[in-house]
Amino acid sequence: MARTKRAGRRSGNPDTKAEILAAARRLFAEEGFESISMRRIASEAGVDPSLIHHYFGSKDDLFLAAIELPLDPAPEVATVLKAGGVEGAGGRLMHAFVSIWDGPHQDKLLAVVRTSLSKPAMSFVLRQLFEHRIVKTVQDVLGEEVDRVPVRASFIASQVFGLVVARYILKLEPLASLSADQLAETIGPTIDRYLTMPVDQFER
Amino acid sequence: MARTKRAGRRSGNPDTKAEILAAARRLFAEEGFESISMRRIASEAGVDPSLIHHYFGSKDDLFLAAIELPLDPAPEVATVLKAGGVEGAGGRLMHAFVSIWDGPHQDKLLAVVRTSLSKPAMSFVLRQLFEHRIVKTVQDVLGEEVDRVPVRASFIASQVFGLVVARYILKLEPLASLSADQLAETIGPTIDRYLTMPVDQFER
Repeated sequence: MARTKRAGRRSGNPDTKAEILAAARRLFAEEGFESISMRRIASEAGVDPSLIHHYFGSKDDLFLAAIELPLDPAPEVATVLKAGGVEGAGGRLMHAFVSIWDGPHQDKLLAVVRTSLSKPAMSFVLRQLFEHRIVKTVQDVLGEEVDRVPVRASFIASQVFGLVVARYILKLEPLASLSADQLAETIGPTIDRYLTMPVDQFER
Repeated sequence: MARTKRAGRRSGNPDTKAEILAAARRLFAEEGFESISMRRIASEAGVDPSLIHHYFGSKDDLFLAAIELPLDPAPEVATVLKAGGVEGAGGRLMHAFVSIWDGPHQDKLLAVVRTSLSKPAMSFVLRQLFEHRIVKTVQDVLGEEVDRVPVRASFIASQVFGLVVARYILKLEPLASLSADQLAETIGPTIDRYLTMPVDQFER
């Protein structure tokens, strides 16, 4: 029902929607996803909280809209990990990641990354996306097979973000021209190592 | 002698120096390091070519000044690689890299990276720095031990740039708090693998 209702009035008032998004972006950047309520964003934007639910759905959905991410990475990660567990997960993740980046969303994804890397407040927002959605998803799916998921996830992120920089921003060759299969074959084992190497020595 | 002369008049005319740097930055970004002569930069800045040599030294030095890099990475890479060849090179590189980034130049290095990742013209400049100085240095030092250095270097860059993003920009934990020794121990083997894995399958 919510869906029908939203679809029916989806266009809404563009100024109101823009104000909500601006308020959400500002508050997420200043105080973080966890500590900001929908009520607080509504108050900041000067609208009724129900209007935010009406336009954007959940707080997760509002977050993705605020950072202008064209797709939610969490279900993609969950699907890939569930399709075989830890064994070969690195290659599967790399293949899926490159396939998405090579697809129609590339320009929008690049815009999010460029903004997140150049503005400190947006770096904080990207970190929250990573910690609250990606790490949590990996924990949910692999938590019984893999210990200390947050430690391992931060190493994996260093390789995956680096691939984005090297392939899509700096366009280093031959990395920029390799296929998803070739990158799964070469970088997949790095991710597998980060999923399985001993990490007990790292205190939090 | 050139050194004494330069030191004696180092301050120079700040406007002229700024104009030379702006012209260099613009031309390197538009047409690339290799194709731009000192004469061309002098002409663009409206100064005599000898003045550029006088203020900045070589074209390499001017390039580093133009992108505001606080230190030249090429001799650092050469020193680390010469200290033991391929064996354990990944750990040594990672240790030296993190030590430099954790040192007094961090803010300036971050500024260069943020600019290079957010502005496409500057991404092109960073790619040139990588291709013409880093890859060339690795080739010079390890060329007899390692085949297809440019292929391997682009993989290594993906991990090293990713560490910069994850540790210094996004500040993902625990990666952001680990020591140079710990990163050498965990990420070093990734670099070693990229230096030694089979890469014959990648056509240029």
